[in-house]
Amino acid sequence: MDMLWSGWGDPAKAAPLPDSVTGLLRDLLGVTPRESGPADLADIAAPAAALPDEARTALRAALGAPDALREDAESRIRHTRGKSTPDLLRIRAGEVDDIPAAVLLPGDHDEVLAVLRACAEHGVAAVPFGGGTSVVGGLAPTTKRPFVALDLRRLDRLIAVDEVSRTATLQPGLRGPQCEALLNERGWTLGHFPQSFEWATVGGFAAARSSGQASAGYGRFDEMVLGLTVATPEGTLETGRAPRSAAGPDLRQLVLGSEGALGVITAVTVRIRPLPAERIYEGWRFASFEAGTAALRRLAQDGPRPTVLRLSDEAETFVGLAQPDAIGSAALPENPGCMAVVGYEGGAEDTAARRAAACEVLLACGGELIGEEPGDRWEHGRYNAPYLRDALLDAGAFAETLETAAFWSALPGLYTAVRSALTDTLTEAGTPPLVMCHISHTYENGASLYFTVVSAQGEDAVAHWEPAKRAANDAILAAGGTISHHHGVGTDHRDWYAREIGPLGIRMLQAVKAEVDPSGVLSPGVLIPVR
Amino acid sequence: MDMLWSGWGDPAKAAPLPDSVTGLLRDLLGVTPRESGPADLADIAAPAAALPDEARTALRAALGAPDALREDAESRIRHTRGKSTPDLLRIRAGEVDDIPAAVLLPGDHDEVLAVLRACAEHGVAAVPFGGGTSVVGGLAPTTKRPFVALDLRRLDRLIAVDEVSRTATLQPGLRGPQCEALLNERGWTLGHFPQSFEWATVGGFAAARSSGQASAGYGRFDEMVLGLTVATPEGTLETGRAPRSAAGPDLRQLVLGSEGALGVITAVTVRIRPLPAERIYEGWRFASFEAGTAALRRLAQDGPRPTVLRLSDEAETFVGLAQPDAIGSAALPENPGCMAVVGYEGGAEDTAARRAAACEVLLACGGELIGEEPGDRWEHGRYNAPYLRDALLDAGAFAETLETAAFWSALPGLYTAVRSALTDTLTEAGTPPLVMCHISHTYENGASLYFTVVSAQGEDAVAHWEPAKRAANDAILAAGGTISHHHGVGTDHRDWYAREIGPLGIRMLQAVKAEVDPSGVLSPGVLIPVR
Repeated sequence: MDMLWSGWGDPAKAAPLPDSVTGLLRDLLGVTPRESGPADLADIAAPAAALPDEARTALRAALGAPDALREDAESRIRHTRGKSTPDLLRIRAGEVDDIPAAVLLPGDHDEVLAVLRACAEHGVAAVPFGGGTSVVGGLAPTTKRPFVALDLRRLDRLIAVDEVSRTATLQPGLRGPQCEALLNERGWTLGHFPQSFEWATVGGFAAARSSGQASAGYGRFDEMVLGLTVATPEGTLETGRAPRSAAGPDLRQLVLGSEGALGVITAVTVRIRPLPAERIYEGWRFASFEAGTAALRRLAQDGPRPTVLRLSDEAETFVGLAQPDAIGSAALPENPGCMAVVGYEGGAEDTAARRAAACEVLLACGGELIGEEPGDRWEHGRYNAPYLRDALLDAGAFAETLETAAFWSALPGLYTAVRSALTDTLTEAGTPPLVMCHISHTYENGASLYFTVVSAQGEDAVAHWEPAKRAANDAILAAGGTISHHHGVGTDHRDWYAREIGPLGIRMLQAVKAEVDPSGVLSPGVLIPVR
Repeated sequence: MDMLWSGWGDPAKAAPLPDSVTGLLRDLLGVTPRESGPADLADIAAPAAALPDEARTALRAALGAPDALREDAESRIRHTRGKSTPDLLRIRAGEVDDIPAAVLLPGDHDEVLAVLRACAEHGVAAVPFGGGTSVVGGLAPTTKRPFVALDLRRLDRLIAVDEVSRTATLQPGLRGPQCEALLNERGWTLGHFPQSFEWATVGGFAAARSSGQASAGYGRFDEMVLGLTVATPEGTLETGRAPRSAAGPDLRQLVLGSEGALGVITAVTVRIRPLPAERIYEGWRFASFEAGTAALRRLAQDGPRPTVLRLSDEAETFVGLAQPDAIGSAALPENPGCMAVVGYEGGAEDTAARRAAACEVLLACGGELIGEEPGDRWEHGRYNAPYLRDALLDAGAFAETLETAAFWSALPGLYTAVRSALTDTLTEAGTPPLVMCHISHTYENGASLYFTVVSAQGEDAVAHWEPAKRAANDAILAAGGTISHHHGVGTDHRDWYAREIGPLGIRMLQAVKAEVDPSGVLSPGVLIPVR
């Protein structure tokens, strides 16, 4: 099934906001309903395909299947940009200036290689396309050349499972649920469940350093990766002969996070784990975000480490965005404090033991066990937030998320700085926002902060948001955070990324890019500034 | 104190082999005593310093302290090559063709930067020098230019401790014990204890991706690193604003393992852990290496994970090299099987719980608990193997180690292939060897293999060893292993490394090197083939 072209996911799962929420948005944030919904797909005037004839001939020759090169308007519109809120606002308005000239569906590694060589020869840019779920402009190259979307959906096989080593080799086009199903039927799990799980792909998880909701237990995706095969215009890179090595720099870590700018990932070898027998998700209440953060830090540093560890701040707890389905539910207590979801997955005995020990720590940190209901509610709604955003946009509100990470000692300052930047900028612009935050990824030495902003849209919603986003990005860097913990860089964060890693870091990446992609056809302007 | 120039460590700790061992070497391996010992330091004819006058003036200007540039023979001989067995055999014979033109002792990051700029301007190569413990030719650049050893011993400060985030920022010249002492007095430990611990430095740990004997519990050094400051001829790279990030490729992982070829590490931010209250090391016996390996794999995959996890094969168990002090002890049982050392460090309660659970697993895997004596013996002798090697060389034997890692399923084949390569080559050459092996680093998905070879020396000991080493390296690659799990690449493994990562991987590294070191003065020929 194809993703909803103008929003998120399966159109059948879309649900309008309850009237109570619409009322809340109006009363609290001054949101007024939009008069018009999204444009009609058939009405969108896609610019004519811009692929030069010679390039088309070469690309067709590089592809095996006769229908693997598509230039029809619908295919191209469906591969236009990603799923950030500005992306959605623009495509709903029928703006498709970042449309690819064609959509290519290669069938294997060799076809990807051949396509990249043809692209290099004919000056056509190529943007790898997995689930199309980028929220950082990763699918909108900065180039005046025509570009093709390299949709990897046909590379959807489980290549091999090594049960002794507990590894699996996967093709990049496998979506989260496909991948889990293939592993689950053999008794294994990857344990990678980001919010985009239902649509995002294995290749995208690797290329963008995805992090899942169970990262406390299963690790980030980049920590699961043991080997990568990468196609570039200059040939193939194969990495990963051992879990760890002292043979030079870890080239896997140069490809992970490269977002298509250094090559197209055509196979990923990952660590797999036994399918857990037991899954328990519980709600905990803390008096404040500070108290809850201290509790999370204790578990992350001294253990036992739960599988899921997530804490909402006061605002997010109050609004119940942590449990999207609960928005507008009448049952909010007077002082809800801060809600945490703590989950344990594993063998029955191990899960019980870890839960008992973790509960002891959480109680000692002032936590109050609420029980399984909030955990179950979180589990039920864990992939629903993007649907909720569509409903908010439909209702005339603006809703967007952004995220960062830092060392524990920098976290309180980072939290305050980003909140203030968002609140101040949007308030000055006349649309005071609701800013919510949660911690959903913890490490021994630090954690992530994930912010959700809801406000009225302003006259031109995209232009209205831009200064707030810039202010948040500036605040992140000034407060010592990284410009992204798991969304990535794309084109939206590129300037801040360049500040984060500095001119020499950028030059190092540009040098690698020039070596593997001398014609500069791989996702130009994504991640790495064009030299 | 300076390391013994012609061997390992503190000369006061050197101990001759017991007569019983000398007899064993003679009877078993045909080792005949050498007539001459090492040359005398004062007698070695060091080539005259080859630093051009202009370069010397520029380098002096780059350094603050008046005695920070040394050209005397002793300083230079003490910075010649590293501590592989061929290195020792050559320097004991008075061969110093890889001698640096000068030894430089910069005092801070800015002086390192200034030195590198001066080197680039005057065409002088620069080789960072920490503890001088490389066993892979990492200190012997492949160049016709004069080169200087950049000894980092004056950068020996603990820069900062962040107790909330549990991180410490260290200067690269800190040796293992200095670093531990500075952290221990504040209640923290790094937990990094490689065999070279007493002499190797923090900068070397990072540059060469060191792995310590407690890696099962504390992780490898590259897993401890959160941030790096790197000086290059083109400026400074600063990395690490968060424990994990999705902001592009992980540049830390490009510097880790770069062995001086991409820059000089001038600060390292690492994860620290509370000093353990409890330390228990126990011996276990398994009927075979296969049975022991299966037990280690179960612990590594399903837990609980001990802090130290090490298994000797039958040969190593028999000879007792796993406990160097026990060589020649009379108490060897008739069928010793395979000895494992399993250690637990941490809080008293946690240690007891992990030990109990691990014992259950080990018993279920057929292990037999021997008790603390073998564990204590291992702990007592854990840094002594290099001293033993000196004694073996003195006695006229040849002794060398090499190591690799692979996924679990490849391990048995890798073990057999490397053993056979070494045994066959040396037997054909007329010096049948004793080949021993242990696993000392385990991961969910694989483990390391560490081989020790002892034989007679043959006529020209260095030339005699070379075909065996080549055969072992070839066998490692053919059997799917990595050319190094923790010794590194240096110049000795460079050709096999190039085969391991392939031509495109090498080109990527060459491109980065050309960007940060356009004059090619950083450790030329180390790790990265000169373009």
